[in-house]
Amino acid sequence: MTPGEPSRWVREGERTLVSTRVLDLKSEHYRHPVRGTQKDFVVIHAPDWVNVVAVTPDMRIILVRQFRFGSSALSLEIPGGVIEKGEDPVAAGIRELSEETGYGGGKVRLLGSVFPNPAIQDNRCHFVLVQGAVPTSPINWDDDEEIQVSTVPVSEALALARSGGITHSLSVAALMFYEGAAGV
Amino acid sequence: MTPGEPSRWVREGERTLVSTRVLDLKSEHYRHPVRGTQKDFVVIHAPDWVNVVAVTPDMRIILVRQFRFGSSALSLEIPGGVIEKGEDPVAAGIRELSEETGYGGGKVRLLGSVFPNPAIQDNRCHFVLVQGAVPTSPINWDDDEEIQVSTVPVSEALALARSGGITHSLSVAALMFYEGAAGV
Repeated sequence: MTPGEPSRWVREGERTLVSTRVLDLKSEHYRHPVRGTQKDFVVIHAPDWVNVVAVTPDMRIILVRQFRFGSSALSLEIPGGVIEKGEDPVAAGIRELSEETGYGGGKVRLLGSVFPNPAIQDNRCHFVLVQGAVPTSPINWDDDEEIQVSTVPVSEALALARSGGITHSLSVAALMFYEGAAGV
Repeated sequence: MTPGEPSRWVREGERTLVSTRVLDLKSEHYRHPVRGTQKDFVVIHAPDWVNVVAVTPDMRIILVRQFRFGSSALSLEIPGGVIEKGEDPVAAGIRELSEETGYGGGKVRLLGSVFPNPAIQDNRCHFVLVQGAVPTSPINWDDDEEIQVSTVPVSEALALARSGGITHSLSVAALMFYEGAAGV
């Protein structure tokens, strides 16, 4: 190991470069506590997100397929979305699962949390596990949503995450947390 | 499965909201081909990134710990960085590994690729596997870098990724790809 703990830079100010519906882009002014270096870094500020590993009673994982405007392509993922202000991550996971797929019920708990990208982004993504999910309600898409819902056996979902069949990094990470937690 | 393939929206224009050193933020105008709906979506444009799973001859994974300006905290990760224009992902992985840790050599190949966030971001992150990595050169940090390098047994790295000890989603996803490829 290289010697010494890396220094924690000190944030001394920030200004908003642009504010949008889904994120704010800020320039943050930092000072290195030892070197004295001062520099501005670009940081994306966004609400926390939630991703849901939902498993049916017959051990199938619920997947959603939809058009994504970042990649400008269809993407196979687990359900998820933006956590509303003040909303609990588990409650947000239950809400997103229900809205996107119509599934609900079962045993629900937080699997873990990650930083989508701590280098340039301040928010977290929480992974919620729903065990024993069943169809409970009509689907309730947002105006711009159009989602193909499917289920695949747990082993197939993990294989898709490992083989490039599921390419959203947060879905891949969530499935890894599930595998670790479930010992599958 | 819900019937029907989701529509692919058509991009009809874009304008840059702000351009920075690490990313451009754009507003993209899309039209739904069936509904006719038109709407602007915010998209982060960034170069592709690379993350490196580097394994030593005695089966230890190389980790780096550094201050991150997005999370404003220290973060334990695998090595990685931005792919330069025209640079091959594997070459970029070798370069970043060498610059950040001084390790190199061994057998190198592409493990897989993901979208960090296809919902709002256009770039990919490529995962490069280096097997048999050994110290080969002096560390060559960027001006703002200050990195604590360590190695842990493969099983410990995977456990860290599953338990919240490693919280960068791209490191977690890369380690999942490694586990799948290595059958560990």
